[in-house]
Amino acid sequence: MSEPAPTQGFWIAADWGTSHLRVWGLSGDRVIHAAQSDQGMGVLERDGFEPALLAMVRDWLPEGQVTPVLACGMVGSRQGWVEAPYSAVPCAPLGGPLAQAPCRDLRLSVHVVPGLKQPRPADVMRGEETQIAGYLAAHPGWDGVICLPGTHSKWAHLSAGEVVSFQTFLTGEMFALLSETSVLRHSVSGWEAAGFAEGVALGMERPERLMARLFAIRAESLLHGLEAGAARARLSGLLIGAELAAAKPYWLGQRVAIIGAEGVARAYADALKTLSVPVTLHDATEMTLAGLTRARALLPEAERPCVN
Amino acid sequence: MSEPAPTQGFWIAADWGTSHLRVWGLSGDRVIHAAQSDQGMGVLERDGFEPALLAMVRDWLPEGQVTPVLACGMVGSRQGWVEAPYSAVPCAPLGGPLAQAPCRDLRLSVHVVPGLKQPRPADVMRGEETQIAGYLAAHPGWDGVICLPGTHSKWAHLSAGEVVSFQTFLTGEMFALLSETSVLRHSVSGWEAAGFAEGVALGMERPERLMARLFAIRAESLLHGLEAGAARARLSGLLIGAELAAAKPYWLGQRVAIIGAEGVARAYADALKTLSVPVTLHDATEMTLAGLTRARALLPEAERPCVN
Repeated sequence: MSEPAPTQGFWIAADWGTSHLRVWGLSGDRVIHAAQSDQGMGVLERDGFEPALLAMVRDWLPEGQVTPVLACGMVGSRQGWVEAPYSAVPCAPLGGPLAQAPCRDLRLSVHVVPGLKQPRPADVMRGEETQIAGYLAAHPGWDGVICLPGTHSKWAHLSAGEVVSFQTFLTGEMFALLSETSVLRHSVSGWEAAGFAEGVALGMERPERLMARLFAIRAESLLHGLEAGAARARLSGLLIGAELAAAKPYWLGQRVAIIGAEGVARAYADALKTLSVPVTLHDATEMTLAGLTRARALLPEAERPCVN
Repeated sequence: MSEPAPTQGFWIAADWGTSHLRVWGLSGDRVIHAAQSDQGMGVLERDGFEPALLAMVRDWLPEGQVTPVLACGMVGSRQGWVEAPYSAVPCAPLGGPLAQAPCRDLRLSVHVVPGLKQPRPADVMRGEETQIAGYLAAHPGWDGVICLPGTHSKWAHLSAGEVVSFQTFLTGEMFALLSETSVLRHSVSGWEAAGFAEGVALGMERPERLMARLFAIRAESLLHGLEAGAARARLSGLLIGAELAAAKPYWLGQRVAIIGAEGVARAYADALKTLSVPVTLHDATEMTLAGLTRARALLPEAERPCVN
């Protein structure tokens, strides 16, 4: 057999959330191209997805053949390009069939990874299931808990290759709203690490006092000159501490793999280490790419790449 | 002695917060004029306060005499018209000297009621102390707890005419941010009372789960078709329930006077009644006017009105 042409295994990975679109052109699992834009699901009408994607990947496409595109995230929501119905846990993170998005350009064949749902307590995820699949690809059979901090932090319990249960916290969005829009915005700016540790301890100790402790940041700033950097770090710590207190059934007695962007993942790791929880850190983008690579096994046979 | 001229006891009361200015012209304790605007402290530079006030009260002012103006709220903050330094609790709600605001118009003499501060746990109030004073004017020697729901809910413990301690919760601001700006805005609209009671019960039972329960509103809306009115009421109930759980040291075994706008005060009353707490309801505007009426006793002798 002759060696395949360089483009034969070419495919495109897309991480398509509410506020961003990140795309990669890959040969097998090797990244050749990368680009990003702010053309998230939130700013697009249904017929705007294909042009938004083409604007970024047009120059990458080999002529005369169909390039498979694997996408995850809110692009698969009801308001997205095509609805990819949730798979219900317990199930494998890539637990359901891919949804094919309608495309006019014959060079593209776009497939969207379905999210996961949990009927009770009601919960949903879109995008994180792909990161979990990416983690499992490198750690098959892994048993433990995955924490995915972010705008909507997720905790997922994994066993025997399946997501058994998960829970979402509004922590990241709350931090953004409070630090940028609330009365606290006058008192918080920068970052002073000692304030974070203090906030986590306070938040974990009496999580039910959260809303009083939040206003106290403003009051301490007015009365005692609390520094803006310490105040912002304490705000973050209070929220993450409250999340950790509520997520205790997830991390207690478990090993925890944290998948996230560098800064926030490190913050969660520091907090969990003070609780003697064994943690490992994993880059969110790498896990997304590994998960989308894994998702190619779900493509129709004709579209599965020859090179892997 | 001849009967005083109708204008002799004329004075002006002003409730001047971050986002609003409400003014009343009174003869003694009888309201003759009333007006309001959006010229709150937040949109005014220091030299903008006098013109904002004059624009509303100019036509009310008797010529040839000085009209005293009693103002409370954020107008007395560092970013306000004149800083009225906080009085430290424990102290009477009108615990410190009035601050005189600089005025060019000789027909006005403007005095600002100072707020209260509590060094530890750090807390501050501006405006609510006047409502508390208004309540005490009608209930001298009252011993119990006053709850002032709003953007920043306050709980104050009163004894022997003094505010002994108080605590502020970010509840109202959090509700506004979450219902109008967060991901939950897609799921909440209207009001369905049953959702409120359910939310209060959930919020009180496990207040530390707040941030997970908030996201669950979105998930239940997506998965189970939770109605927008029930969702919005549950959001409010969850936040107020969490506040009630944290404020338990305030209300447990106490009688509670609630001072607030009709809707929110009624919501707190309903929630407290389910806890067998004896509550009474009082209108916030009436209490503000009664408090500012009371504050006239702190005016320089020459400005105290003859008619009362």
